[in-house]
Amino acid sequence: MTMVKALTDAALAERIFTAVADASSDAPGVSRESYGAGETRALEIIAEIAAENGLTCETDAYGNLWMRLPEDSRREPPVVIGSHLDSVPHGGNFDGLAGVVAAMMVLIRTRPYYDDAPPLRALALRGEESAWYGKAYIGSLALLGKLPPNALDLHHRNGTGTLGEAMSHIGIDTHAIRAGHAVLEPKDISAYLELHIEQGPVMVARNWPITVVTGIRGNVRHNTVHCIGEAGHSGAVPRWLRKDAVLAMAELLSRMDEHWRVLLQMGMDLVMTSGICTTATDSHAVSVIPGDIRFSLEIRSQDAATMERFYDLIRQECRAIETSRGVSFAFDQRIDTAPATMDTGWITRLEAAAHRLSLPLESIPSGAGHDAAVFANAGIPSAMVFVRNDHGSHNPFEAMEIADFLKGVDLLAEAVHVPG
Amino acid sequence: MTMVKALTDAALAERIFTAVADASSDAPGVSRESYGAGETRALEIIAEIAAENGLTCETDAYGNLWMRLPEDSRREPPVVIGSHLDSVPHGGNFDGLAGVVAAMMVLIRTRPYYDDAPPLRALALRGEESAWYGKAYIGSLALLGKLPPNALDLHHRNGTGTLGEAMSHIGIDTHAIRAGHAVLEPKDISAYLELHIEQGPVMVARNWPITVVTGIRGNVRHNTVHCIGEAGHSGAVPRWLRKDAVLAMAELLSRMDEHWRVLLQMGMDLVMTSGICTTATDSHAVSVIPGDIRFSLEIRSQDAATMERFYDLIRQECRAIETSRGVSFAFDQRIDTAPATMDTGWITRLEAAAHRLSLPLESIPSGAGHDAAVFANAGIPSAMVFVRNDHGSHNPFEAMEIADFLKGVDLLAEAVHVPG
Repeated sequence: MTMVKALTDAALAERIFTAVADASSDAPGVSRESYGAGETRALEIIAEIAAENGLTCETDAYGNLWMRLPEDSRREPPVVIGSHLDSVPHGGNFDGLAGVVAAMMVLIRTRPYYDDAPPLRALALRGEESAWYGKAYIGSLALLGKLPPNALDLHHRNGTGTLGEAMSHIGIDTHAIRAGHAVLEPKDISAYLELHIEQGPVMVARNWPITVVTGIRGNVRHNTVHCIGEAGHSGAVPRWLRKDAVLAMAELLSRMDEHWRVLLQMGMDLVMTSGICTTATDSHAVSVIPGDIRFSLEIRSQDAATMERFYDLIRQECRAIETSRGVSFAFDQRIDTAPATMDTGWITRLEAAAHRLSLPLESIPSGAGHDAAVFANAGIPSAMVFVRNDHGSHNPFEAMEIADFLKGVDLLAEAVHVPG
Repeated sequence: MTMVKALTDAALAERIFTAVADASSDAPGVSRESYGAGETRALEIIAEIAAENGLTCETDAYGNLWMRLPEDSRREPPVVIGSHLDSVPHGGNFDGLAGVVAAMMVLIRTRPYYDDAPPLRALALRGEESAWYGKAYIGSLALLGKLPPNALDLHHRNGTGTLGEAMSHIGIDTHAIRAGHAVLEPKDISAYLELHIEQGPVMVARNWPITVVTGIRGNVRHNTVHCIGEAGHSGAVPRWLRKDAVLAMAELLSRMDEHWRVLLQMGMDLVMTSGICTTATDSHAVSVIPGDIRFSLEIRSQDAATMERFYDLIRQECRAIETSRGVSFAFDQRIDTAPATMDTGWITRLEAAAHRLSLPLESIPSGAGHDAAVFANAGIPSAMVFVRNDHGSHNPFEAMEIADFLKGVDLLAEAVHVPG
C-alpha cells in the first residue's frame, strides 16, 4: 500500500513538473515571466491539475492562486503552504514550482484525515523573482499590502513597459496595490510554510536530502566602494611613495576574509562577497600604478547584529588602510535587507515529524531570500524545508531528485497533520 | 665671473627649451612624434642653435643629429653625451630634450680646454618613445644595428602608416635598418652619458636636485593572469564551499605585497604593480560569487636575479592558493626586459666630480627605461644623471627647475673634463 502511494505521488509530481516545463520552455531552460505569459500558463496548468484532483481553486485580487479541500469549511485561520510560479529568464523548472507542487500534494495527501489537521491552503504566488522588474517578492508584498507604490513604475528588464502595466494587462487592480490594500492580514493565517530547492551546494556536499531552514539571511550591500589612490609610473615610484588602490583593496578584502574565517569558527552566521571589481578601463595600464578601483561589497547573515558588527569592522579596516596607504575609500549608499527568523515552534514540529518518519533532518540557513521572509517579517509564524539540488538555481541545470522532493512532501504532511 | 657664466648658461638653456616647446606645442603640452614633424622641427632648432654656438652638426643615416667642436680633430673613440628629442603625445617639454640641451652645453662649456678632456660628441636621438609605434628605443637600437626588422612594420598609434613608411618619408634608408646595418659599433665610442629628468617622485620627496643613476630596472610582465574560481549565489554558498576568484587574487597580491616589503628591508631593489584588474563585465554581479578575475602583473628590478626569485615566489604562492582555495591561475605569455647596469667607473667619476663641486649627489635606480640601457646592454660603458622633476613625465605638468638642470650640466662637464 505504501509502495503504491509512493509510486502514485512520484507519477503525479513528475506529471506536473513536466506539464509546466513544457508550457514555459524557452531553451535553454524555462522562462516564466512575473505577471507575464509563462507564469499565467503555469497557474492555469496548476489549477487544471488541482481541479482534476478534487481541489477547489480561487484566484485572489492580485492574481495569486489559492487551493483548498472543498469539504473543509472551517473558518479559523489556515496554515498556508506555498511558493511562487515565476522563474528567471532561461531558468530552472524547480525554483518556486517545487514548493507549489508540494503544497498541492500535501493537501491531497492529508485529505482522508483533514479534520485532524489545522485548516490548510495551498498558495501559488506570482512575481517572486527580481530578474524581470528589479524587485523581488512582489506577489507576497502586494498580498500583505506592503509593496512600495513606486515599484509599480519599475520598468521591465527590456526597458519596455512597467510592472503596473503588466499587472493591469492581466486584470489586477493596481490602484488597490498602490493604495496598499492587503488581500490578507497577518492574523488571517496561522502559519506560512514553504518548500524550496536549496540554491547553494551544501546539501549535495553533505549528502542531506532535506533540511529545515533556521532563518533567512538579510544583507547589507554597497554596489560600489571607490578606492582612490594615486596613479604613477610603475617603474619609477618606490613602494614608500605609492598610493596603490588595488593593493589597498586587496589588503581590505584579505583582512576581512580572515576576520570572516575567525567569526565562523566562533559559530557566527556570515557570508561576504565582492562580486564586482574593476580598475578604470579608460586609464588603467600594465605599467601604471592603479590610481583607483571600484568594487562591490555584500555581507549576509541570519543575525542583524552580526552583520552590523562585521560592517563596522569593514569601515574600521578601511580607516586603518587609508592611514597606512594614503588612499581613501568612498562608499555609495548602503542598502539593507533585514534577515527573517523562522518560527521555532514550526521548526520543532518539523523536527519531531522527521523523527517520527525516521528521516534525518539537518538544519541550514537560507542565504537566498524567499517569500517566507516577507510573511515572517509581517509577524506570521513561518518555516521552510529545503530539498537537495545540484548546480544552484536560476539556471537550466538545477537538479532535484523526485525521491528527495517526496521526502519533503512527507515531512510537511506529517508536520501539519500531527501538531507538535 | 662665475655669476655671469651662470646667467648666460641659464639664458641659453631657457632659450632652447622655449624655442623647441613653441615649435612643438600641441595643447595641452607638446607633441614631437617619433620620425614625425615635431621631432624633425626640434632637430632643426637644435642644429641651428648649435651652429650659432660654433658647433659642427651632422645627421647620420638614420636621422640622428651629432654635434662636435670643429677644432677637435682627434680620432680616438669619443665620449657621447645624448638623449632623445621625441615626446609622447601631449607630453612634457623636458623628457628627452633636457638631455640633448645638456649635451650641447657641456660641449660649449668645455671648449676652452677641450684637449684636456676625451673627445666629446653631443647626440640628439630620434624615436625613443613607445607611444607612437608601440616600440621604444628605436633610434638607439637602429644606430647599433639591433632594431628587430619587424619593428618597421609596426603601425602608428592612429592605425595609419607604419614606422618604416615614416622613416622613408624623411629619407632614412629602411633597407639598411632592416638588414641590421649599424651606424655605430660599440667599439666606436668610449662611453655614453645621459642626463634625464626623474620620472618618479623620489627626488622631490627627498629634496635631491641631482642624482646619479645606479642602474636601469628591467621588468617581467604578464599582461593577463586569469584567476578561475567558481561562480555561485552570494548568499547560499558557505565559505568552505566557495572558490572566490577575487578573494584568491586579493590573497595573492597581499602576500606578495608583504614579501615585497620584507625584501626592500633586506636592501633589494624591487617594485611590483598590478595595474589592471577586472571581473567579467558580462556576468559579474553584486550577488554572485566572482568566478573569475583577470589582472596584470609587473615586477621591476635593477637585478635580474632578484626579479627571477620574486617571480618564482609569485608562482609558488599561486600554487599554494590554488590548493587552499580551489581556484586556478592561468598566466599568459611572460614578457621580459633585461635590466641594464650602469658603469661603475663612470659612476665613480661622477661622484668624484660632485665632491669637487661640493654638490651633494645621492644615487637612485631608474625605474623607467632609457636609451642608456640600449648602449649599456651593447657593452658600452654608460651612466646617467637624473634631475629633480615634479609630477612625473609623459604629461604637460613636468616641472624641472633650470637651477637643478644647470647643476646636472656642471656635474657632467666636470666629470668629462677631469678623468676619475
